[in-house]
Amino acid sequence: MTVNKKQENKITIEHGAGGQVMDSLIKNIILKHTDKKNGGIGLHDLDDGASIPHNNENIVITTDSHVVRPIFFPGGDIGRLAVSGTINDLSVMGAKPIALTSALILEEGLEIEVVEKTINSLFKTAQEAEVDIVTGDTKVMEAGELDKIIINTTGIGYTNHPISDSGLKPGDKIILTGSVGNHGLSILSHREGFNFKSNIKSDVKPINKIIDKALEIGGVTAMKDPTRGGLSKSINEMASKANVNIELKENKIPIKKEVKSASEILGIDPMSVANEGIAIIGVKPEKANEILEKLKKIDGAKDTAVIGTVKEGKGKVTLETTIGGKRYIEPPAGDPIPRVC
Amino acid sequence: MTVNKKQENKITIEHGAGGQVMDSLIKNIILKHTDKKNGGIGLHDLDDGASIPHNNENIVITTDSHVVRPIFFPGGDIGRLAVSGTINDLSVMGAKPIALTSALILEEGLEIEVVEKTINSLFKTAQEAEVDIVTGDTKVMEAGELDKIIINTTGIGYTNHPISDSGLKPGDKIILTGSVGNHGLSILSHREGFNFKSNIKSDVKPINKIIDKALEIGGVTAMKDPTRGGLSKSINEMASKANVNIELKENKIPIKKEVKSASEILGIDPMSVANEGIAIIGVKPEKANEILEKLKKIDGAKDTAVIGTVKEGKGKVTLETTIGGKRYIEPPAGDPIPRVC
Repeated sequence: MTVNKKQENKITIEHGAGGQVMDSLIKNIILKHTDKKNGGIGLHDLDDGASIPHNNENIVITTDSHVVRPIFFPGGDIGRLAVSGTINDLSVMGAKPIALTSALILEEGLEIEVVEKTINSLFKTAQEAEVDIVTGDTKVMEAGELDKIIINTTGIGYTNHPISDSGLKPGDKIILTGSVGNHGLSILSHREGFNFKSNIKSDVKPINKIIDKALEIGGVTAMKDPTRGGLSKSINEMASKANVNIELKENKIPIKKEVKSASEILGIDPMSVANEGIAIIGVKPEKANEILEKLKKIDGAKDTAVIGTVKEGKGKVTLETTIGGKRYIEPPAGDPIPRVC
Repeated sequence: MTVNKKQENKITIEHGAGGQVMDSLIKNIILKHTDKKNGGIGLHDLDDGASIPHNNENIVITTDSHVVRPIFFPGGDIGRLAVSGTINDLSVMGAKPIALTSALILEEGLEIEVVEKTINSLFKTAQEAEVDIVTGDTKVMEAGELDKIIINTTGIGYTNHPISDSGLKPGDKIILTGSVGNHGLSILSHREGFNFKSNIKSDVKPINKIIDKALEIGGVTAMKDPTRGGLSKSINEMASKANVNIELKENKIPIKKEVKSASEILGIDPMSVANEGIAIIGVKPEKANEILEKLKKIDGAKDTAVIGTVKEGKGKVTLETTIGGKRYIEPPAGDPIPRVC
């Protein structure tokens, strides 16, 4: 790959696309400023958020700015996405969400009706997740300096036992709580004008109650929600952080027929695009079946499947294909569909 | 005032300028979604943040997206502003800051050097305040959709006794921990190209240690940092929330000579522009002198002054002018200098 020297010194779309290009920017310019661990999960862990030990428990905190375009898409909108994204990051760290903040940045000239519709969705989703929005901020930028609307949501929660990305052990089973690719492909289909021909809807939703059920059963060793960069990115992170291999089976990975065919038409790997309503859960083998059976009974998790097994290794992920071959799953340089969250 | 019907339905710069126009947007489209009080300070209180009672103490949380332009200005930059703004909001709620998040949104094509310089300042300021940045987020938007850089910082802290905006009682003294108008006027002078002729520097800094000193002495009844809309906005909020009158004395309000003359040249009221490194502290009369004397010894609070007194009343603020007259101080519709934080 030849990289233009001039480009090397500038921010590119890939720097925000959740893949390896983004990770290296963060490593190069951010992480050097801190070597603190303070006993919890911190910046260096590049996890879904941070945990701060306090009085025999842990506060978990996570933040995301949401820049998805279009702001209304099949199955959701930027308000629902902002709340779900933050709730889900808290949940996959094992925390019970207790409060959210919401900071809006609006374009001058934007219709107040659009803002209102977005805010309605934001609060409705928070209500669905049973979490309060407790404080916020409102800024306006001139037209030409900002397009439409950006929402930052930050969430806090508590847990006695934070669950990191890195807790997998050989023998653990990998559970996925729903089908892959719905969010990224709903947005791409919509952008490409396929929305009237396809039924693809984003999976965007808060999954705290689904995760609660798994935690209640026990045996959870690691969790992550496969947003930007999709399953490929997240599963590789989990493998490399735990220094184990993961063997996935293609025919076990749930994918909707319409997502599969849209992926083929659009030339996009559905395993590398963002999801906004599913979790990857690593569990001790003896608990895998119970979690699988219980989650399949919950609305929003009916497609839950055991998709693979953790093995001794050095951080590689392999996929046994439906025709019996085996190939490595590499983490994408960036999500092939940018600006999805 | 005649308002064009079409404009009424669209977002204007004033909606983000921290004044009454912003407050009415928030009241109309946000607050109707929540009537929860959960025992702490929440959305309805329109305070500097929220407090959440938990295990005999309170978590305090506050969020701000920073959109200041230019991103480097005399006395500071967007990184220093982001950290200071959030630390200060926690501090004026009586909380000891324990962690910050930092969510960046970058324009495609922005020089990485600019990002790096901003991040350096962000972490340096956090270090100065002795608070860790524990987690973050990075997004990129296309050039034309975003100008340069936006930083959201959210902070959490703890306190046994949250201090609200609304705690003033008749008899209390009003202390201001520094001179007014420096931040807003440094930015406006810079924008207008006056920067080589003036020495005005922003006061942007974390003031948690200054506030700590006041809290240590005790008797603090209310606090607020007068950012957007300046002293006029904040002091009116404090008066109306507590349903008391406040009498300020113009000759007691600290203001730098260069700020005063720039205000006159530019036709801007220095009492209505943003400050980023001072606090308004309401204190019981018997503690006022001790707090005044102790704060004046701290770097960054040397201009601390008792600027007024709280009286029985209905939320009005009056100013006794230097020539002996008296006039009402009204809250501005919006900060006269937009995009300062």
